[in-house]
Amino acid sequence: MSEKSSAAPAPMRSTNFVSAVPEGDNRTRQVCADCGFINYENPKIVVGSVCHWGDRILMCRRAINPRKGHWTLPAGFLEQHETTTAGAAREAWEEARARIEIDTLLAVYAVPRISQVQLMYRARLVSDDVSAGPESLEVGLFEFDKIPWDDLAFPSVRWALHQFQESRHLDSFAAYTNPPGETGDF
Amino acid sequence: MSEKSSAAPAPMRSTNFVSAVPEGDNRTRQVCADCGFINYENPKIVVGSVCHWGDRILMCRRAINPRKGHWTLPAGFLEQHETTTAGAAREAWEEARARIEIDTLLAVYAVPRISQVQLMYRARLVSDDVSAGPESLEVGLFEFDKIPWDDLAFPSVRWALHQFQESRHLDSFAAYTNPPGETGDF
Repeated sequence: MSEKSSAAPAPMRSTNFVSAVPEGDNRTRQVCADCGFINYENPKIVVGSVCHWGDRILMCRRAINPRKGHWTLPAGFLEQHETTTAGAAREAWEEARARIEIDTLLAVYAVPRISQVQLMYRARLVSDDVSAGPESLEVGLFEFDKIPWDDLAFPSVRWALHQFQESRHLDSFAAYTNPPGETGDF
Repeated sequence: MSEKSSAAPAPMRSTNFVSAVPEGDNRTRQVCADCGFINYENPKIVVGSVCHWGDRILMCRRAINPRKGHWTLPAGFLEQHETTTAGAAREAWEEARARIEIDTLLAVYAVPRISQVQLMYRARLVSDDVSAGPESLEVGLFEFDKIPWDDLAFPSVRWALHQFQESRHLDSFAAYTNPPGETGDF
């Protein structure tokens, strides 16, 4: 396999990781007993947006797990060398073929059980020409009262929608966080 | 080596990673040619704070590289299963033996060259009893005009200090971002 191969490698065999505290560290990491490679794991950043077109909000019905079939906001993992706003705009395109203009930071959520930090932006749709990308079954523009509230994918989707509604008349406001006592778990 | 070993493993040999696009993915990842392990790399989250005691601000002189010997704010990598505010408070303790009360989100910075997102909080010191932790040569409480401006460790330290000063009289404000055109590179 060359350095530039784009073929998938052979299916993963069981990697020989063991738990160990590397020298100079103070936490247990997963270390390969064969070659010594240290698999540092860090929390992951999710970037997304509440995108509006007039009084309607863009939502996507998930085509993939987790929570396949449920409604969410366009959001996903930030990639290497990407700014958070560029990542949120990319996700809106990938999931809903939506072109957006990001306005302001709506919220920063922590979901420590799964080691996620979520940055949700407020954004304006450049047009209402949206359609399902490969990770969505369908997309829709919903008035606030017509959002499929009983069928949302994740707690943070509900938080972001309510916080968007609460602040939509404000030009500038402090970013929201998790509602009191809520950890993002179901 | 047992599963529960806390000893460091043998020094890392050259791990046999090659560049490949795993099946079902659309980006090149580092894949071990020996065992197929996929080393997904994601942007990392730095959490920190501008901590004040009256009109003075807590700073730390770095005992480690990068930028050993230069002044910084207490900040570091968020750990797994940690909330961002808990991480910022931990870093203040580790680097400056400071107990803090976090007040509000000051800024979210993107440093895409090194794939970092930095969340900086505004915080109040619970006491002025601070001292250098293992990653600091010394710590100090500085009035704004007496900050060692010519000897700061990173551009984002300067940004956070100025944005703190600009907003210190405000109870609530929109989180700052990178100053226009600044990427965090030197």
